[in-house]
Amino acid sequence: MSDPQTEWAMLLCKSLVEAGVREAIISPGSRSTPLVWAASRTSGLRCHCLIDERSAGFYALGQARISGMPSVLICTSGTALSHYFPAVIEAREAGTPLIVLSADRPFELQHCGAQQTIDQTRIFGGYAFYHELGTPVSDRSALLGLRRSAWQAVATAIEVPRGAVHLNFRAKKPLEPQHDTPPVQLPKTAALLPPRRAARRAVDPAELQALVDALSSSDCPLLICGALSIQESPDPELVRRFVELSGCVLCAETVSQLRFALADSTAGLVCSTYDWLLGSSVLKARLAPDFALQLGAAPVSAGLERLISVSEPALRYAICAESGWPDPSHQAAQVIRASASELLEAACALLASRARSPRPARLRLWRDAQRLARATVEEHLGSGFGEAAAVATVCAALPDPSVLAVGNSLPPRLLDRYCPSSVRQISVCSQRGASGIEGAIAGVLGAATQSATATTLLLGDISFLHDVGSLWAARSDRTHAPPYEHAVVIVVLNNAGGRIFDQLPIATSPGVELHWWTTPHALQLESAAALYGLAYSRATERPQLSAALTAAYARPGVTLIEVVVDPDSASRSLGRIARELEPRFAELLGEDPS
Amino acid sequence: MSDPQTEWAMLLCKSLVEAGVREAIISPGSRSTPLVWAASRTSGLRCHCLIDERSAGFYALGQARISGMPSVLICTSGTALSHYFPAVIEAREAGTPLIVLSADRPFELQHCGAQQTIDQTRIFGGYAFYHELGTPVSDRSALLGLRRSAWQAVATAIEVPRGAVHLNFRAKKPLEPQHDTPPVQLPKTAALLPPRRAARRAVDPAELQALVDALSSSDCPLLICGALSIQESPDPELVRRFVELSGCVLCAETVSQLRFALADSTAGLVCSTYDWLLGSSVLKARLAPDFALQLGAAPVSAGLERLISVSEPALRYAICAESGWPDPSHQAAQVIRASASELLEAACALLASRARSPRPARLRLWRDAQRLARATVEEHLGSGFGEAAAVATVCAALPDPSVLAVGNSLPPRLLDRYCPSSVRQISVCSQRGASGIEGAIAGVLGAATQSATATTLLLGDISFLHDVGSLWAARSDRTHAPPYEHAVVIVVLNNAGGRIFDQLPIATSPGVELHWWTTPHALQLESAAALYGLAYSRATERPQLSAALTAAYARPGVTLIEVVVDPDSASRSLGRIARELEPRFAELLGEDPS
Repeated sequence: MSDPQTEWAMLLCKSLVEAGVREAIISPGSRSTPLVWAASRTSGLRCHCLIDERSAGFYALGQARISGMPSVLICTSGTALSHYFPAVIEAREAGTPLIVLSADRPFELQHCGAQQTIDQTRIFGGYAFYHELGTPVSDRSALLGLRRSAWQAVATAIEVPRGAVHLNFRAKKPLEPQHDTPPVQLPKTAALLPPRRAARRAVDPAELQALVDALSSSDCPLLICGALSIQESPDPELVRRFVELSGCVLCAETVSQLRFALADSTAGLVCSTYDWLLGSSVLKARLAPDFALQLGAAPVSAGLERLISVSEPALRYAICAESGWPDPSHQAAQVIRASASELLEAACALLASRARSPRPARLRLWRDAQRLARATVEEHLGSGFGEAAAVATVCAALPDPSVLAVGNSLPPRLLDRYCPSSVRQISVCSQRGASGIEGAIAGVLGAATQSATATTLLLGDISFLHDVGSLWAARSDRTHAPPYEHAVVIVVLNNAGGRIFDQLPIATSPGVELHWWTTPHALQLESAAALYGLAYSRATERPQLSAALTAAYARPGVTLIEVVVDPDSASRSLGRIARELEPRFAELLGEDPS
Repeated sequence: MSDPQTEWAMLLCKSLVEAGVREAIISPGSRSTPLVWAASRTSGLRCHCLIDERSAGFYALGQARISGMPSVLICTSGTALSHYFPAVIEAREAGTPLIVLSADRPFELQHCGAQQTIDQTRIFGGYAFYHELGTPVSDRSALLGLRRSAWQAVATAIEVPRGAVHLNFRAKKPLEPQHDTPPVQLPKTAALLPPRRAARRAVDPAELQALVDALSSSDCPLLICGALSIQESPDPELVRRFVELSGCVLCAETVSQLRFALADSTAGLVCSTYDWLLGSSVLKARLAPDFALQLGAAPVSAGLERLISVSEPALRYAICAESGWPDPSHQAAQVIRASASELLEAACALLASRARSPRPARLRLWRDAQRLARATVEEHLGSGFGEAAAVATVCAALPDPSVLAVGNSLPPRLLDRYCPSSVRQISVCSQRGASGIEGAIAGVLGAATQSATATTLLLGDISFLHDVGSLWAARSDRTHAPPYEHAVVIVVLNNAGGRIFDQLPIATSPGVELHWWTTPHALQLESAAALYGLAYSRATERPQLSAALTAAYARPGVTLIEVVVDPDSASRSLGRIARELEPRFAELLGEDPS
């Protein structure tokens, strides 16, 4: 292999590895032949083959959610790379690093009806950093430039604002390696440190001071943790210190990594029932905080969202965001440009030097209400089996340590409502950049390749069916052994449709044909497992589900567990618990007239 | 329902119908609630529900391939519409009309981390005409403008160059209809003729004269017909007249609509064996024409492509293209801007007034060689069962009239090699704009909703698995009866991977790990049928396949037929027939030393 095109592709792959890329996901094609050849022979680069580029995109995101580094997607020319678009958008919105390396035709084949030839230039618009690599040439400057481009692609993908980089490589026929051309003089690799994370910034002292003043003077501050990637999320011990020093009520969503990292303590409160508390008409005004700090994305929780958007102007609201501007209610008085860790460390240092203000009755009310809510929820969960009990069962069964991937729509909301906070090593993968329901299977299968522990995905049936083809990456047949040394457990909550719509106002509109929203179906998901050769269990009650989970975690490889629940079981639980809670909360307020 | 937002959505849907739209494909979501509400209540608009927007996009293309009119895609905000991207690109490249109607969030929710909110502005770049509709307002000018925008969207989609139009509609909460607002004064619909196809143009007289001169003076002109949509393809009778008047050898690919529309005649030749003839080393130089006219897309055939690109300068080459520039070999001496019908009509008129030049020996050689090739192919097909025999069996079994949808990669090439021309009413749907392998299942299911006849899809296993989730649209369960009154037969050629790569030079590169290209698998496709509740047959030999086809065509609804063939059977047939033909061609040349 010494023709310029093959050597060029080899140098590109080698340089990506030098900069820290470890995983390539190949979708098959002809024009990408030099890239595929090179990737499959580059030491330090593991290749995965996914026939569907859309799956490949989300698989790469799943890997990056665990590794923090971009995987490289390799595809052929034409519409192939357009299937990456949803994942590219999610990469930008969630700040997940990603590199797309597309094959393209040479310039002279543009705009003349050549097969699988489209204009790939800036095809992802503003959603990816675009770099045209052109057709290979062998002069020294071009080769040095190629290596620089590869390093720069990785740096761009991992520097704030993280996201997708698109490298477009134009290959000419012959595409396969040629053995009769003179050797290319490759640049010697300089011993540079490959690009890593961006340098940490100091938090602006004035911003910090304002924040700490607000915290110190607050009656009962709230710390809201929305979606945070594994890399962004601060160390739980740091959060615990901050909660204690500030006397905050911590409302950590499942997707924040902090839900399963902290337990209650005497000085602060780790609240896992805020959705019930803030949804209560008798309670919510009494609990309303005068100050809140948000880490990570804007909350999924409708209760928290309402709290933020309607408490104005009594609530002073600050957001810590390294990039982006996660303030959909337009209420933030302060957006602090820092990582969550940077801010909490700086704030702890300042808070520790201050006399702690005594925390008043409101914190006690939060605590008592939480105890009541948790007891009521547990009572309900013990009284029958439905979507809520299924989620709680799955959550309780999660191995420690392990990875939990959360689909969108109902699953994150159910986890937040039904799962108590706890101290376990659960890393959470979520897709809260654009919050689409797509790519969940691909994402968890990618994540599982990077995880040294069991991995669980909790998702709904529509999300499952939207991404069913991604099970290709998990297929177990005589041609393929998937690369999973640990258990990968896909739990589908099959409520026969998209049941979040049952909880929206359209559900009760007169004359509505709700099936256009809920898309009901009666499909048997067992056949999806059969198609891809996966282990499968079906559960319609708690002991079955528990047994299925135990069996699935006991073996390496992918198991599909279908939990069949009544279509309306999620709304029914929601309504019943809320109704039971109201009089209990009222009674509590009677006892505690603070 | 009289709130402005709902009325606005109703007016939009009504205006689309006035302009000729008949089909809406809804993918579920919340932000699109006003649009879904309106579409499901608009008289004259039939709604389909596909949970996967990517499937929906190709389903809409399938409908438009038959109807010639755009279907309207309706989706929610966020990444949802990015899944349409592959179909939007194909719409542009193939000139297939399409309308995307995306829900979006109001302007104030941009760039602040609101859920399912991304910048949807011009998201498809140059691949779609973009129209921002903004948030609904009720003044007369805005309402008139909305109606105009809907009409204009349809006109833009169907006028040359046809393609995709993207309407972006921003909805505010409450999304469901409100019943307590004053009625909106809607504009009275003026009795305008809705937009239809663009006016026909006269062919430039000088261009026509040059073409007819070249035809008349040619020794043995070729008429090459590449991919043409049902709407673009000229009437077979017109083509027959043109072939007779010009003395052309007609090489019509399956995807041109003309392969199954014309039989041999004395004056011209309908050649269906050009791939064999032009692939022969002894024959090709003797057959080489001095003039060729191309209708439609550049040919799929490698033989035709080589003929065009290496015959220079002996070959004078003209292309007729209403839009685009389908000349990837850069050899065209003339690109005539006209529809194929316009050009052939004008050329026939001019040719008819001329004395016909006697056609010499070369036409006879084409005819004799074709007879020999066809006999050799038939001999081979009769001698065993493999991919070639499967394709020939399917082709022979096609009901008359019916629709044949052709996947990409091997299927169009196999049809061209193994199926003789014939006179049947077979309408062909293909995806030769960007020639991707995606969306084939969605496309045929969409096409079948528009066809009054049986519909057949012939595709490979990788293409099938790439699009397996689109079977949702065919599902047959207690919640859904798919809208097919006729047989829809999906024939998967399962050769356990992407076997076109076995035929490319990379296959014989030393040290290649070919599985990165061929992506072998051993999946049982029966389970895919089971998942979606479809009838299924498996065939490993000809009588089974014939019986399965007969049974499938005898009932309405979708049948999946999996034809299991040896992975190398396609390459083996190709090599064997080519080897058998060489000495026969040489003998023919000995007999016919013209």
